[in-house]
Amino acid sequence: MKVPAMPYTAPLSDFRFLLDHIVGYHRVAATDRFADADIDTATAVLAEAAKLAADTLAPLQRAGDLHPARLENGVVRTSPGFAEGFRAIAEGGWLGMAADPAHGGMGLPMTLTTAVNEMMGSACLALQLNPLMSQGQIEALEHHASDAIKALYLPKLISGEWTGTMNLTESQAGSDVGALRARATPNADGTYAVSGQKIYISWADNDFATNVCHLVLARLPDGAPGTRGISLFMVPKFLPDANGHAGQANSLRVVSLEHKLGLHGSPTAVMDYDNATGWLVGAPHKGMAAMFTMMNNARLGVGVQGLSVAEGAYQHALYYARDRRQGRTPQAADGAITGHADVRRMLTHMKAEIFATRAIALWNAVAIDMARAQTDAPDGADAPDGADWAARAALLTPITKAHGTETGIEVANTGIQVHGGMGYVEETGAAQYLRDVRVTAIYEGTNGIQAMDLVNRKMADGGEAAYRLLEEIQTAAESARPALPALAGAVWNAAESLREGTEWLVAASVDDRNAGAVAYLRAFARVLGGHAHLTAATASGGSGPRAALARVFITRILPEHASLLAQAQAGAADLYALSDMDLSA
Amino acid sequence: MKVPAMPYTAPLSDFRFLLDHIVGYHRVAATDRFADADIDTATAVLAEAAKLAADTLAPLQRAGDLHPARLENGVVRTSPGFAEGFRAIAEGGWLGMAADPAHGGMGLPMTLTTAVNEMMGSACLALQLNPLMSQGQIEALEHHASDAIKALYLPKLISGEWTGTMNLTESQAGSDVGALRARATPNADGTYAVSGQKIYISWADNDFATNVCHLVLARLPDGAPGTRGISLFMVPKFLPDANGHAGQANSLRVVSLEHKLGLHGSPTAVMDYDNATGWLVGAPHKGMAAMFTMMNNARLGVGVQGLSVAEGAYQHALYYARDRRQGRTPQAADGAITGHADVRRMLTHMKAEIFATRAIALWNAVAIDMARAQTDAPDGADAPDGADWAARAALLTPITKAHGTETGIEVANTGIQVHGGMGYVEETGAAQYLRDVRVTAIYEGTNGIQAMDLVNRKMADGGEAAYRLLEEIQTAAESARPALPALAGAVWNAAESLREGTEWLVAASVDDRNAGAVAYLRAFARVLGGHAHLTAATASGGSGPRAALARVFITRILPEHASLLAQAQAGAADLYALSDMDLSA
Repeated sequence: MKVPAMPYTAPLSDFRFLLDHIVGYHRVAATDRFADADIDTATAVLAEAAKLAADTLAPLQRAGDLHPARLENGVVRTSPGFAEGFRAIAEGGWLGMAADPAHGGMGLPMTLTTAVNEMMGSACLALQLNPLMSQGQIEALEHHASDAIKALYLPKLISGEWTGTMNLTESQAGSDVGALRARATPNADGTYAVSGQKIYISWADNDFATNVCHLVLARLPDGAPGTRGISLFMVPKFLPDANGHAGQANSLRVVSLEHKLGLHGSPTAVMDYDNATGWLVGAPHKGMAAMFTMMNNARLGVGVQGLSVAEGAYQHALYYARDRRQGRTPQAADGAITGHADVRRMLTHMKAEIFATRAIALWNAVAIDMARAQTDAPDGADAPDGADWAARAALLTPITKAHGTETGIEVANTGIQVHGGMGYVEETGAAQYLRDVRVTAIYEGTNGIQAMDLVNRKMADGGEAAYRLLEEIQTAAESARPALPALAGAVWNAAESLREGTEWLVAASVDDRNAGAVAYLRAFARVLGGHAHLTAATASGGSGPRAALARVFITRILPEHASLLAQAQAGAADLYALSDMDLSA
Repeated sequence: MKVPAMPYTAPLSDFRFLLDHIVGYHRVAATDRFADADIDTATAVLAEAAKLAADTLAPLQRAGDLHPARLENGVVRTSPGFAEGFRAIAEGGWLGMAADPAHGGMGLPMTLTTAVNEMMGSACLALQLNPLMSQGQIEALEHHASDAIKALYLPKLISGEWTGTMNLTESQAGSDVGALRARATPNADGTYAVSGQKIYISWADNDFATNVCHLVLARLPDGAPGTRGISLFMVPKFLPDANGHAGQANSLRVVSLEHKLGLHGSPTAVMDYDNATGWLVGAPHKGMAAMFTMMNNARLGVGVQGLSVAEGAYQHALYYARDRRQGRTPQAADGAITGHADVRRMLTHMKAEIFATRAIALWNAVAIDMARAQTDAPDGADAPDGADWAARAALLTPITKAHGTETGIEVANTGIQVHGGMGYVEETGAAQYLRDVRVTAIYEGTNGIQAMDLVNRKMADGGEAAYRLLEEIQTAAESARPALPALAGAVWNAAESLREGTEWLVAASVDDRNAGAVAYLRAFARVLGGHAHLTAATASGGSGPRAALARVFITRILPEHASLLAQAQAGAADLYALSDMDLSA
């Protein structure tokens, strides 16, 4: 069967504009750590990745959907072309682009990794999830593993000879990770015997790497109940031999693959560990901390997956709308449906949402880079220090994850609508974007969990990191006000409402906070989006297409912050006033 | 393979409450036309349909998804159990429940048909689409067909011996119906030779009816271009013989079935007519008017399909959430996730949205019934007359369609989220609701088309029908204010904002209206939802679960009207400020 390729063109000019004018990439390039990654280098790197995404990965998107990964005699057979696609990613060095050069990485900023991951995900989300998992594992090992494990695993993960997975969830332990039952008992040789069943393991196996490295959460015999008694283990599919090659098979197996709504090219497995040999990563009982390193990376990465799909779905819909002729409008002489106001509304909103979401993801990545680069730098008088940047990154991560994936779902859904009846026909490809992206709001912590993380853990500083960000936004709006009074005023006021909402949340009870968490997170993303667009309009001198897009966002979309904040501050009482019995019948 | 049945319990107490306290069913029952359908009869009818839906149709939901209808040697083979399910619907008399008793119908109000259709759709949407098509055809024939056609076709459509379809769309003529190319030329015997290709024909064929009756739009030789030159023809699969039985095969065929995102149990076909024999329905060149009778019926019906899926998805999610244990909360001693504030938010919002959407659909149906019942009644001094009710029905139809289907999509999407990772696994069944319902925002006129219908055709009265409805809402809010000041104030103010938005729209240019149409329609639905919940809270004495649900809607969801109205009044200029070139890269 002939598999049609999705058209995809990487948004390189948007990346460049965002790096130059919105997210302050110059600050990253000015650090010692990332001194080699100046804007010209960055531009060249992104152009290279754009080529990979468009030429090599985009043709695999439909193949993964039509020919899902399957389990044959205990071994996963991947979708046609995926092995070659993975090899191209590995050979380009993209797996280790943010990794330590000491182990073969490129040591590039997370900001560039974020842009590259976006492009690869737009082209083929199911395959891109594999490198994303390896990237997270690389980072977790860099931070928490022993030197021996680093020396053995990192070069192979970075080269793509081996791939990585994360194993948290069990059937009774999803959002409540602390309920896990997997056990690890010490062996005489310093290794551990790991046993248990894990579910929802993305890319648990493949037929293009010579080993699959599972990071598994399990409890030691003296581990306390709950999350404080959990340890992290490296449990490879094949035990490394004396030369560090994949040797004897470990005592683990892929039990089954899930039949999912989408992302068919990515095998999602139930894994069984039966006294499998594992090595402790990090200190005993400190597994959650190590896993959080991987998860925070993955949360940014999953938010970017949402963005990826939004961009892919947008390009797909625009391509169709330009070609589709229905009725006549003064605005499209050729009869293309782009001339119709409501089609134009859908397309411009999609584009405006994508720009805002991309800005949030890149701000997040810049904060990560600055935190890393400045960790040991002396505090400046005015400049934010490493801890400030780390707090900024921590604040933005749940927003990037939840908002990015919601944007992916909404834009993909709108993309179907732009196609009309064709959107419901699978051959068109529009529906695949929605099916694929839907899981991103669930995995790596559901969006509800992200929102609770934002209003609880990330507000444990009394809202300090949030207020600092809001002050920046209002300062920028004040500067923009003389030239763009209406737009700047709207953004300033929205930030002020968000500040009031933040004050309410910080003072609220846990239940009230949690009842408003999702709405608050969305409101925060709206304000950040307004800030991004206002900055873009200002940088464009208040005219031209970027200013027009800013007007679309600020006039038509930003007002949502108000209704979201009303919901955020509505409290939990009404929700609990309905009994379980009342909810039915 | 064992196919698990979805749990489904018909919301009979909600129907009764809505009929008694919200939508004024007593007015319908007080008319001469519907005098037999008093509330006790209505209750008995709904209880009977509830039994059919839960016992007979719900077990077919998964079967339709897993075993799609397929085309074998030009004949459609339907999903396992669908033939028996259809027979049960037919034998219960549900196909003709609103039809004229002169031809075997029950002559019951559309209000009850709407509730019954909702239940059948919750249980098995793919199968329910078949009766919905027949119901629309029955109504179109009752209004427009010759007595001979009525006498021949109506009894068989009502008994379910034959089924009906509607054939509008061609590949170049979707939303722009006037671009159709199908031709009809007169034969010597008074019939017509109909030729052309039609796409997206729902239930174009089946293996459980002895004939399939296609209503086909085509152009006569002297038909003008555009929609004014289109005529409507009855083109049956088998030509009726002298005894009115299905005889010789007509010259038409099912070319292919679409491979769709969902609704797999419903065959969606490309149909080819090659000098097929047809009979004119209605006057020459007046086919659009006749088809609109069918489409208006179908638009209400499709809006109700959205509601159906919302209810099904809600029950499915609630069932899961009560059983799923994660973490501990003070609010759920057994550890069920219903105790978590964000899960509770999702469930209560779903329930509140469903109640509001059901009220809108039933208001719409009541208006249709009152318009029909009062058409020949003398004008009362105060009471709205038939024309007022008809205008009310016309105003509400696009709102019911677009908002009902959006609710279906949003609630089904939230239902997946409530399931966490299980929501992405197809076996769970949660994803099917989203896949199935997605088309409802597209077919029978996309939701964008509905919104344009609302702000153009339905506002051609200068907004009079809208203002009359808003006045009722504000009068009710004023009555409610002493007992429920906060809730009543919020609804009154929202209605006032909607009145201002309506004034703006009525005075605006076509482009500005169309650019705001979708947002305006959603805002209207929000206000109607607030009105429904406020009325429910008042009827409940301001306390108890209905008042609690009203607080959830009015405090947490109704505020969206403001941001939607801001978008509705933002105008088209910014959308068109971006050129086609600007939309890409």
